[in-house]
Amino acid sequence: MSKMSDINVSKTVAIFFIGILIGASIITILLPILTTNNVSNITQTQTIITGESAFNEYDRPTPMPHRYWAETDEFYVFTSGGQQGGIIVYTVPSMKILSEIPMFNIDQKWGWTTQDVDVKEMLTNPKTGEVITFGDTHHPSLSKTNGEYDGRWLFINDKLYPRIGKIDLTLFRTTQILWIPNIEGGLHGHHTSPNGDLDVANFELEQYNSEIIDYITANTEVTTDKVDGPYVGGFAGVDISSDGTMSNAWQVWGPWHHDLLRIGSGVSNGWIVNTAYNTERAVDTVGMFAREYDYVFFWNIASIEEAINQNKYMTTTEAPDVPVISWEDVEVYMVKIPLNPHGVDISPTGKYILNSGKATTRVTAIDFDKVLTAISEKRFTGEEFGVSILDENYVYAADMDLGLGPTHIDFDNKGFAYIAFFVDSDIKKIALGEPYTDLNNMEPWTIADVIPVHYSVGHLVIAGGDTAKPYGKYLISMNKLTKDTFLPHGPLIAENHELFNIEENPAILIDQMPMLPEPHYSQMLPVDLIKDKIKNAYDLPEVIEESRVEYDYENEEVTVYMTAVRSFFDPNVFNVPEGWKVNVHLTNIELSVDLTHGFAIEGHDVSIGIDPGDVKHVEFVVDEPGVYWYYCIWFCSELHMEMRGRMIVIPDGEWNSSLESVSD
Amino acid sequence: MSKMSDINVSKTVAIFFIGILIGASIITILLPILTTNNVSNITQTQTIITGESAFNEYDRPTPMPHRYWAETDEFYVFTSGGQQGGIIVYTVPSMKILSEIPMFNIDQKWGWTTQDVDVKEMLTNPKTGEVITFGDTHHPSLSKTNGEYDGRWLFINDKLYPRIGKIDLTLFRTTQILWIPNIEGGLHGHHTSPNGDLDVANFELEQYNSEIIDYITANTEVTTDKVDGPYVGGFAGVDISSDGTMSNAWQVWGPWHHDLLRIGSGVSNGWIVNTAYNTERAVDTVGMFAREYDYVFFWNIASIEEAINQNKYMTTTEAPDVPVISWEDVEVYMVKIPLNPHGVDISPTGKYILNSGKATTRVTAIDFDKVLTAISEKRFTGEEFGVSILDENYVYAADMDLGLGPTHIDFDNKGFAYIAFFVDSDIKKIALGEPYTDLNNMEPWTIADVIPVHYSVGHLVIAGGDTAKPYGKYLISMNKLTKDTFLPHGPLIAENHELFNIEENPAILIDQMPMLPEPHYSQMLPVDLIKDKIKNAYDLPEVIEESRVEYDYENEEVTVYMTAVRSFFDPNVFNVPEGWKVNVHLTNIELSVDLTHGFAIEGHDVSIGIDPGDVKHVEFVVDEPGVYWYYCIWFCSELHMEMRGRMIVIPDGEWNSSLESVSD
Repeated sequence: MSKMSDINVSKTVAIFFIGILIGASIITILLPILTTNNVSNITQTQTIITGESAFNEYDRPTPMPHRYWAETDEFYVFTSGGQQGGIIVYTVPSMKILSEIPMFNIDQKWGWTTQDVDVKEMLTNPKTGEVITFGDTHHPSLSKTNGEYDGRWLFINDKLYPRIGKIDLTLFRTTQILWIPNIEGGLHGHHTSPNGDLDVANFELEQYNSEIIDYITANTEVTTDKVDGPYVGGFAGVDISSDGTMSNAWQVWGPWHHDLLRIGSGVSNGWIVNTAYNTERAVDTVGMFAREYDYVFFWNIASIEEAINQNKYMTTTEAPDVPVISWEDVEVYMVKIPLNPHGVDISPTGKYILNSGKATTRVTAIDFDKVLTAISEKRFTGEEFGVSILDENYVYAADMDLGLGPTHIDFDNKGFAYIAFFVDSDIKKIALGEPYTDLNNMEPWTIADVIPVHYSVGHLVIAGGDTAKPYGKYLISMNKLTKDTFLPHGPLIAENHELFNIEENPAILIDQMPMLPEPHYSQMLPVDLIKDKIKNAYDLPEVIEESRVEYDYENEEVTVYMTAVRSFFDPNVFNVPEGWKVNVHLTNIELSVDLTHGFAIEGHDVSIGIDPGDVKHVEFVVDEPGVYWYYCIWFCSELHMEMRGRMIVIPDGEWNSSLESVSD
Repeated sequence: MSKMSDINVSKTVAIFFIGILIGASIITILLPILTTNNVSNITQTQTIITGESAFNEYDRPTPMPHRYWAETDEFYVFTSGGQQGGIIVYTVPSMKILSEIPMFNIDQKWGWTTQDVDVKEMLTNPKTGEVITFGDTHHPSLSKTNGEYDGRWLFINDKLYPRIGKIDLTLFRTTQILWIPNIEGGLHGHHTSPNGDLDVANFELEQYNSEIIDYITANTEVTTDKVDGPYVGGFAGVDISSDGTMSNAWQVWGPWHHDLLRIGSGVSNGWIVNTAYNTERAVDTVGMFAREYDYVFFWNIASIEEAINQNKYMTTTEAPDVPVISWEDVEVYMVKIPLNPHGVDISPTGKYILNSGKATTRVTAIDFDKVLTAISEKRFTGEEFGVSILDENYVYAADMDLGLGPTHIDFDNKGFAYIAFFVDSDIKKIALGEPYTDLNNMEPWTIADVIPVHYSVGHLVIAGGDTAKPYGKYLISMNKLTKDTFLPHGPLIAENHELFNIEENPAILIDQMPMLPEPHYSQMLPVDLIKDKIKNAYDLPEVIEESRVEYDYENEEVTVYMTAVRSFFDPNVFNVPEGWKVNVHLTNIELSVDLTHGFAIEGHDVSIGIDPGDVKHVEFVVDEPGVYWYYCIWFCSELHMEMRGRMIVIPDGEWNSSLESVSD
């Protein structure tokens, strides 16, 4: 104020300044009054004040309006659970976990247990008869039509056992598990084709299958020691029918095992692209780094079908119906790429294939148009095990020195690639070349943004990034190490899924989400594409079995047809002779969403959930005379505790057929 | 502008108004510029603008500062996973899930599988030898000292099998599972005592144990038909030693089974309080509602110890060291309460016991001071099976008609009880009587607030609500039905945990959080009480076993002492004769948080995680000659893919001792 009095100004100017102060004061006083009236006012006012660039659309209004998240979320995210064995579903931008979909694991809370006869069958290894209740889901791949997501199914591979699971997106449930024959261990790279009729997965690690090794090494220069290694590798093709049913189509085996995989689209349609980090064919960590380069491979899908048509394949004792094709009988080329490559990802038009050399600082971009030219013009620099090596100086669109530990790559809708760096803990945004320069208006293969992440990013995902038309807007960085990002919670801690809005440059960090260990890769689906197709209940069978108990004296089996409805089991009591087998077919005749019932029975290790409209079948043997309660394990109503019944096991020798009838 | 020209004002006044407009404009223009500079500016500005009553402390700043949640979260929440089988940990107010702690389930992502010899032993039912890998966790109870949480352990019961698990809060891991003998099925009500030396759990459902039925019905008026029922029930006492070790102490059996349970504190210290909803002793749903009332029971803990001292107990063949005491030999009283009671909860001073009649509209409050008087003055209205019934008209402090379907009750730090209503879908806030009237300044037993929830609340929790000194501030409503609160995700959908700030009246809804089905009850612990005690790694053994392979020809066993460190196993290759048993003792010698390694081996159904500093033991038999990769299943470094080794199984007859040595 002392300075104000020193200023020699006219009365008018003074009044002018007082007016400014009053005006500012009025706004400052009025705003809080306006904003405390109701929530919509708060939101609106904040927009005015903080402006668009502050991204206040992600503020959480308080008090929170009911259904706030349902009305503001834009994408479903399907994340592989990793060792969790299934899929985790959350939504963006709320970053709230909505669901888990069990697949290779058992999970009683979703009613997914081996006590369910159908689940047990899906989880049984056809080779050994063992029921395998754990897995390592890795690369989810949403079904596509014309190169875009169609919202029908999600396919995902197990990295631990050779199997691929399918989720029906109308039910959010696993409806098929296909086992891949001939191999030990699981599958790594995995992707579905642009039209959703083919699913391909690389075999995890080198394979030891003497029948196939004998076949593919018989007339070739490939040698392999059956004890000391190295072995051979390959990948499996899976047919997907129009109703989504998977079946084993073929396998291609060759001298190397493969890591990541994409099926080409657009310019690269009809080709499988995969990497191999152990082209040294070593059996120890150090040996796998001996060379200064490795390879990316291009496999012509039509040539695989042609080999089958020409009977150029074998079959194994284990899988007499699945053609096994030698790499020698298939059209395949390779290109040298920086050593121990990891991610191999294809731009939306299918033109650019980006490869990250995870043990280097380099990311290379291969122009697939030039690959096709190089093949037709035979621009080869050599060969290995009969596979021609394309001239990398010709096919490279770029060879970029970008940072430490590049892993995976994804693409937005504005002509940019986003590359994750594990060691640098950042994501580099890179401008793609033609035909994307019209979109990005930048010098191709230059850096547009460097996005810090916390920490050590593995995979990253952009909405629709593996389709012909990415949705863009959101990027999720799936970080492997979290350090002190979240509050401490023991020696093994959550991962960190970081959500960025990438419509702005630089990208804006929206949220950090602890994610239970250890998801691997995710895909994102727009809410509007599926939300109206999701069912509230299973379709009840046309004929619901009448509640009854049937006694089969010849086979010593009791079959109980039971219904569940709030808050009763029918029948709620039955007798069974000691030593018999019991089959329970249980129908939940409710059709309201979430009105799942449970069925647990004391002393018989049975505890399952039955969703509305669903029918479940459990079977068990009764060894001990006694009375065993069965009861609902899902809180279904206020009378849930009372929803129970009794199985009475009559001691050996005391049974007579009058016991078939028992009053409630 | 045309109106402006019509106003007949002096030039000075016009300039004054222009000043006001410019001032307002400057603020409007400047604020967004200021707020985009850095995050602290945004937060500060929003605080000024929206004012305290808008609760903008829960706004999510954008861009989000790194570690925002770690710096703003106030409480850990430990939620029973229900059929998930373990504990889920999230934080408040972020409502972010930090961790799951597996217990009765198996969960490969946390390394908690039956392939781990120690886990398998914990999950083995001592009665049958079966390994039970699923459960239904229900009532978590944090350890206490002097009636307050001490942040050392969390105990929780299984509703499906008779067992109680303990979590070490320095590791966030299950470290003990205690099986309760003599009963089928699981445990329901469960609570630890104010000083943490006693843990008590009610048996779920009526029990059929002929040895015990014969004992407790021998000299009493209780009759029970061993086939048609009704049976008997009871509860188990578990000693907790100063290092947290649980052991079976005693069991009390009587004519009824019991539902919920609390151990008294303060005024009610030394008493166990539990309910029974089936005092009709019926075996069907309708029969369980025949009476117009049921009972709450008060059991004198000292009298249980006295019965043991006087040798008034039996033991069973199954558990010769666990005293089983008849209800007749214990001091016990009961009070009539509204029919089919559920929640029974005790106010912080231990004075009021609130009971909800879940099939009624009534909640009763019993004054425990009057219970003690009624006992000493023998104010009985009758007896049943020898148990005296206290005069409810004397001991009731209140009998409130509040709404449909009351379930559970919790307490804040300001003299209020919060009562959940399943059918009404709301929580009523009720003023407690003396000595709380000084705090709440209200007419006792009147309604202070009605909080709508979405929908059908079962349990609710307030921070510290079951202790002598509740923390208050936050209430979480654990709703059983969600309906359309979140986006659709199939027939079985997430529950809804709603967070309220209850420092204000009416309470403020802060967040709606989808919670995977089907948690039951939660407890909340202040972050500052435990965050500095949580370990980043297990304590490595004093002597780390040297890496080696030992061959035991007599027992045909190989023992492999192996270490894991980024990115190598040592040894990374070993031979073993076909048909032998293999023991792998694997030490993760890393000590950094989150540097967990995994160990999976092809073809042998082994896949485990080993946290930093931990030692794991797995064993398996090798049946098939061949070469099997073992590899790390945790993404531990950029060279994670290459972290692998081989087990070579030598065919029968080809083994010789020179194969003990194998070069890498």
